[in-house]
Amino acid sequence: MLGLMQQWPLLCHKILDHAAVQHGHREVVSRSVEGPVVRTTWGEVHLRARRVAQALLRDGIREGDRVGTLAWNTARHVEAWYGIMGMGAVYHTLNPRLFPEQIAWIFNHAGDRLLFVDLTFLPLVEKLAPHLKTLEKVVILTDGAHMPQTGLPGAVAYEEWLAGCDGDFAWVTLDENAAAGMCYTSGTTGDPKGVVYSHRSNVLHAMIACMPDSMGIGSRDVIMPVVPMFHANAWGLAQSTPMIGAKLVMPGGKMDGASIYEMLDTEKVTFTAAVPTIWMMLLQHLEETGKMLPYLKKVVIGGSACPRVIVQKFEEKYGVAVIHAWGMTEMSPLGTLCTMKPECADLPRDELLAVKDKQGFTPFGVEMKVTDDHDRSLPWDGKTFGRLKVRGPAVAASYFGGAGAEQFDAEGWFDTGDVAHIDALGYMQITDRAKDVIKSGGEWISSIEIENIAVGYPGVAEAAVVGVPHPKWDERPLLVIVRRKNAEPAKTDIIDFLRGKIAKWWMPDDIVFVDEIPHTATGKIQKSVLRDRYRDYQLPSS
Amino acid sequence: MLGLMQQWPLLCHKILDHAAVQHGHREVVSRSVEGPVVRTTWGEVHLRARRVAQALLRDGIREGDRVGTLAWNTARHVEAWYGIMGMGAVYHTLNPRLFPEQIAWIFNHAGDRLLFVDLTFLPLVEKLAPHLKTLEKVVILTDGAHMPQTGLPGAVAYEEWLAGCDGDFAWVTLDENAAAGMCYTSGTTGDPKGVVYSHRSNVLHAMIACMPDSMGIGSRDVIMPVVPMFHANAWGLAQSTPMIGAKLVMPGGKMDGASIYEMLDTEKVTFTAAVPTIWMMLLQHLEETGKMLPYLKKVVIGGSACPRVIVQKFEEKYGVAVIHAWGMTEMSPLGTLCTMKPECADLPRDELLAVKDKQGFTPFGVEMKVTDDHDRSLPWDGKTFGRLKVRGPAVAASYFGGAGAEQFDAEGWFDTGDVAHIDALGYMQITDRAKDVIKSGGEWISSIEIENIAVGYPGVAEAAVVGVPHPKWDERPLLVIVRRKNAEPAKTDIIDFLRGKIAKWWMPDDIVFVDEIPHTATGKIQKSVLRDRYRDYQLPSS
Repeated sequence: MLGLMQQWPLLCHKILDHAAVQHGHREVVSRSVEGPVVRTTWGEVHLRARRVAQALLRDGIREGDRVGTLAWNTARHVEAWYGIMGMGAVYHTLNPRLFPEQIAWIFNHAGDRLLFVDLTFLPLVEKLAPHLKTLEKVVILTDGAHMPQTGLPGAVAYEEWLAGCDGDFAWVTLDENAAAGMCYTSGTTGDPKGVVYSHRSNVLHAMIACMPDSMGIGSRDVIMPVVPMFHANAWGLAQSTPMIGAKLVMPGGKMDGASIYEMLDTEKVTFTAAVPTIWMMLLQHLEETGKMLPYLKKVVIGGSACPRVIVQKFEEKYGVAVIHAWGMTEMSPLGTLCTMKPECADLPRDELLAVKDKQGFTPFGVEMKVTDDHDRSLPWDGKTFGRLKVRGPAVAASYFGGAGAEQFDAEGWFDTGDVAHIDALGYMQITDRAKDVIKSGGEWISSIEIENIAVGYPGVAEAAVVGVPHPKWDERPLLVIVRRKNAEPAKTDIIDFLRGKIAKWWMPDDIVFVDEIPHTATGKIQKSVLRDRYRDYQLPSS
Repeated sequence: MLGLMQQWPLLCHKILDHAAVQHGHREVVSRSVEGPVVRTTWGEVHLRARRVAQALLRDGIREGDRVGTLAWNTARHVEAWYGIMGMGAVYHTLNPRLFPEQIAWIFNHAGDRLLFVDLTFLPLVEKLAPHLKTLEKVVILTDGAHMPQTGLPGAVAYEEWLAGCDGDFAWVTLDENAAAGMCYTSGTTGDPKGVVYSHRSNVLHAMIACMPDSMGIGSRDVIMPVVPMFHANAWGLAQSTPMIGAKLVMPGGKMDGASIYEMLDTEKVTFTAAVPTIWMMLLQHLEETGKMLPYLKKVVIGGSACPRVIVQKFEEKYGVAVIHAWGMTEMSPLGTLCTMKPECADLPRDELLAVKDKQGFTPFGVEMKVTDDHDRSLPWDGKTFGRLKVRGPAVAASYFGGAGAEQFDAEGWFDTGDVAHIDALGYMQITDRAKDVIKSGGEWISSIEIENIAVGYPGVAEAAVVGVPHPKWDERPLLVIVRRKNAEPAKTDIIDFLRGKIAKWWMPDDIVFVDEIPHTATGKIQKSVLRDRYRDYQLPSS
């Protein structure tokens, strides 16, 4: 027996319709790539998105075609997304921070036919163009007055490209499982893998994100996604913000402390989100200038573990609540958010901070478990760590083209590649990447936990821990350290510092000092390179 | 091109799974029908719901079968719902406030095979049993110790019925469009009509309800649905509360001011919801006792228009925010909620109260429009009223058995039967029922608006306005009044009172004084009876 309720497919462009109907006059403010701060509204964005859809159709783009974007967070980028989705094509955000050859590889793998690009990235695209095999047309996100000379195929200024389109366009009706967007993950090894979001997954993800125990955002908020749309969909904010009809503030390409502060202050932003690096820069700017944050209420921090000092500064000095969060491109991206359950209400401050160190708990719509190497579920005791696996309507079921199939099991669980523990209250904490964990005598040692403690020693600038083959224990930890300028900590100093802070059998068997630790284009430590380098390292204990 | 996201059907029992996993120790507190306040947890409810599923299966209930409930809001009722849904059957809430013959008609129309019933309603069911054609078994929501003597078919005490079931049961996997629940609407005329909710519609409705601009509820709330589960699903709270893992407080059958106050106070309820009558009783109790509401933060009021005095008392005297809301059984039921958009932030208090008189705006997932008799959309100007039509994933597409097909159009719009206007900010206000609106010279006069003003006159206890045939104007308004005891207002007094408060051409052509106005079982004025009675009334103007 079926229910007798309406077939109302969950389509992304219905979000924008809702924003236009119920919140049409609410502002969308962007720091433009050309320089000035520009203002529009959800009503205008709705109209212009339909003009984008018309222009794409006119140019031969069809349902299911991929359309690339290489752009900062601006209203134009949002219009482009909704225009693409609303005519049935698939937006594909390219991350300009990747190595150029990776960008080209990703572009070709997705088969993008048209590319929206910001002025900033024009030199990059000009360099790459000969390698972009499926590229037919480049739309430069600017107006005629700012249009540069370029030999790119079909290059046209966005405003001129739109000029002939009046917006009298009815969104296409699609299966809610139709593809809406794409984003590639670039791990530390192997080729990037494409995640293909559906309209349904994007809509459900946006709903989950708005819930009071998630981001908790409503129409009275002023929302600034500093996290880029090309970084895991700006954590869904380009969809959640119009869903609730809040004012949207887009920072464009300027993400230094002073520029971010200016937008927060001038536009009276109440809610923002970005990686820890951004907030370190903002907090430094505030300290240098003595400025405060009178409007900001809440900041979501994710992308990498949030240092406690950021939480403390925001909350204790500036009165801004911090929500630590974790997610992945494969999860649209939200997985857990560290908001406070009622059990935390009466915790002393230091215990509360210990909860806030964690990545948080799952909202309805995300299931998680930690398992051992035999896929057995591990207890939620806040210390037993294992592989973190997730399931949900906004979690990937496979990658584009079938790569990485080993990460998905028959029961629908996606292996995140993270190692984590979950406590009795359901709060999850990432302890490592699965491939970086050190297996010593059948037990796991968390490389990240040792690193986090080691960088707390005054003379240490950066630390990495990798497993080195060992005749008796299979692997033992080696601590690799970059010393601070003019600091000369001895091995014994650091070992003494670690003692008592980690289990005895976790103690690194040796320490090496290096000038530099290798990183990926997006700043992650390349542990695979370190493991290769120290594969034959003779530990004193061997 | 399809997205590559997980197939994770939206099933109601996943809500309860989430509550058990992430909020398993959170309390569910009920005032039991037997008397004492009893306490359980979401973890326990989860276990017992699976025991219910096992017991139903053992008794021969199968996927798609309808299972009736005639019960107050208690944990047992919630367990029963989830047990029914989790084994693929369909809960069907029966409203004990209907006339007995209506209840029997509805029971038979739905074809309920098994009935869960509270002790309170046993005499009613015993009287009805001979007429309940499809009834095979009655499970009485009590334990062996409280089990009364009864000759009902297969009668068994709930706790004994569950005794053999251990809860080791895996929910069935269903299409998310499968039926999950049923509820009948009983209009003022015609047979009741059955609405059949799907798992998908219930889950999406619950998500919409939790959003910050809707009910705005999270895990730190303590939620008491005073509105019964048999009244439009307790406005979704039996699903939204476990979705966010909040503590649930169930008032059982005692809904007088003192009993409601006791639960609010003892359990530190932060959020509650019911019809205006309940709140009138509570506010009266508070005034009589001088008690305050230190824990309560928010109250949702719907079911009928909320008098301004309730809003003012709650907000100004007790510091409790009021959310006026509107919905229908056909809408799961939420349609609009009157939370404040940013444009309301700086309104003077009286203008804010005027906004709060309205039923509110639609969240994402509900579309609305007002149309004239030719289905043309009317402007959103806050005064042009027309038929209110809605669309969305939690709005009915048809009634069980195909009744009322004329209320659904080809584009998926459901005609609510209400007449409303919508203002430029998107706030909707109900002005009448379509069949009660008075058509005078081709223009519409709102009967409700005149009634609301008329009851403001000190000597008026109740007022109804109906259209009476008129040779020139087609219809003209007749005001029917019940005077307060010992009050003797004259017609001219009331006409003078109305003058200036309504348009001249809205002024009733005459007033009649009566001892009583006829009502339906659920307390609505039976205007059809009044219209019949005054069909041949000679207006002075005729």
